[in-house]
Amino acid sequence: MKVAVIGLGTMGAPMAANLRKGGCEVVVHNRTRGREEALVLQGATRAASPREAAAGADVVLSCVSDTPDAEAVLLDPKDGVIAGAAAGTLVIDCSTISPAGARRIAAALAARRIGFVDAPVSGGSEGAQKATLAIMCGGTEDDFARAKPVLEKIGKSIVHVGPVGCGQIAKAVNQVVIAGTYQAVAEGLCLAKKAGADPARVVAAIENGAAASWVMANRSKNMRDDRYPLGFRVRLHRKDLAIALDTARQVGLPMPSASYVATIEDGLIAQGHGDEDMSAIARAVRRNGNVADGPM
Amino acid sequence: MKVAVIGLGTMGAPMAANLRKGGCEVVVHNRTRGREEALVLQGATRAASPREAAAGADVVLSCVSDTPDAEAVLLDPKDGVIAGAAAGTLVIDCSTISPAGARRIAAALAARRIGFVDAPVSGGSEGAQKATLAIMCGGTEDDFARAKPVLEKIGKSIVHVGPVGCGQIAKAVNQVVIAGTYQAVAEGLCLAKKAGADPARVVAAIENGAAASWVMANRSKNMRDDRYPLGFRVRLHRKDLAIALDTARQVGLPMPSASYVATIEDGLIAQGHGDEDMSAIARAVRRNGNVADGPM
Repeated sequence: MKVAVIGLGTMGAPMAANLRKGGCEVVVHNRTRGREEALVLQGATRAASPREAAAGADVVLSCVSDTPDAEAVLLDPKDGVIAGAAAGTLVIDCSTISPAGARRIAAALAARRIGFVDAPVSGGSEGAQKATLAIMCGGTEDDFARAKPVLEKIGKSIVHVGPVGCGQIAKAVNQVVIAGTYQAVAEGLCLAKKAGADPARVVAAIENGAAASWVMANRSKNMRDDRYPLGFRVRLHRKDLAIALDTARQVGLPMPSASYVATIEDGLIAQGHGDEDMSAIARAVRRNGNVADGPM
Repeated sequence: MKVAVIGLGTMGAPMAANLRKGGCEVVVHNRTRGREEALVLQGATRAASPREAAAGADVVLSCVSDTPDAEAVLLDPKDGVIAGAAAGTLVIDCSTISPAGARRIAAALAARRIGFVDAPVSGGSEGAQKATLAIMCGGTEDDFARAKPVLEKIGKSIVHVGPVGCGQIAKAVNQVVIAGTYQAVAEGLCLAKKAGADPARVVAAIENGAAASWVMANRSKNMRDDRYPLGFRVRLHRKDLAIALDTARQVGLPMPSASYVATIEDGLIAQGHGDEDMSAIARAVRRNGNVADGPM
């Protein structure tokens, strides 16, 4: 099978490498062309544009930064995938974009009889390298069935959520849920510290009950240590939260917790913490409570 | 060992029964005396007051509703435990009260050479019945060491968090963390619904990743079904959150997420939902987003 991979960033590059390892014929393209070279050493071939990459491919997998990038790469009438892909090609977009953008892209591709699955991922760069990503998919049953064996080469949990856009909705929900959970854990840890208990022992006392979460288990130590190694960047989560909040506004849903965390992340980014792990949300809770910098 | 159990509510009554099953000689007292009768059938003896219950007991275990109740039961100079307990007695208070209240009680008891451990629990009535409670303890090493074998008859995870008050701090932190987590999960589910995805399939796609939590695993179905069977009552969580928010105010810590959820719970209680499970927090998110009543 010939797979074109477009977008060789932190996520796209290891995805391309894993597809190659999985036995696919891989063609790569990246806007900054130099990034293609490492993949060539692993047996991929290069293409000068998304159009050229898509020509002759069975599947096109895109992984770019945001909705406008995905629309440009896939739909540009001159250089986009749509200009090169044959009818019957399947496009799998692993970017995190708006559900509405995914639907627009799918409709434009469908007019050329090109299939589309939105397939945003979670699990970070480590998950991309180890092929253990969780992948949330939106598309028809047929398109999902075609996408699944490809996605199984780059991820572990591949779930068909519903029609086109539903993968992006699931990703947006994921980002909303973690936003509030990080904030809640940060408030709890700072309360422990300020009220006079050892936050580590408080965590040990509550982490296996109703307060249990992935965030508590995997990120509360960052908050206690006041060190925020990656992980998942604040600025990337803020971008994803913008998609979730825009979608919520369009459908008339107030999300006070997610909205609050978005403003906190804006503050962190403005103060130079945008490239820290999003557990840095604890910085704001600490600062508002006048908790001293450093381990708590 | 002779254990006096004071307060035979939803939690205290099964605790007394489990202490009896565990081989303790059990004396019971409850303000509404009729509740003592079921325990007498299980081999306990009755006492007419906390003072009388404490007389001759090795350990006094109290489980009442709030800080003023605990202070009255333990410190009343005429009828309280302090009037009946001999020097060397150990008081274990399983009520959820303020950390400051626990410290006041411990200081008053210490003046009579009576030991004290604050030992609030989580795990609900089911945990109390099955003796699987998680118990968060505050007290000296010596007092904790004496309390532990008693608590092992009523709970499963017995953690010494720190000095007196630290058990209550851990409980307050627990309630703060779950408050924000419920809100976050409710916002996420309503976003899924309003944006056009099946909330159950979205949960399936994200519940094992960074969005994983006890709340997601055990209570998101209530929110989807729009049915809120107990569980843990909204009004009891709101009472516990008042303790957490008062403590935070005293130590100068803003907790915006917990504060927001407290106002939402006030609204739910005013509207007659106080005796539902606290997953009913989803009612407010649903209503604000105009999500139709019933399963989503």
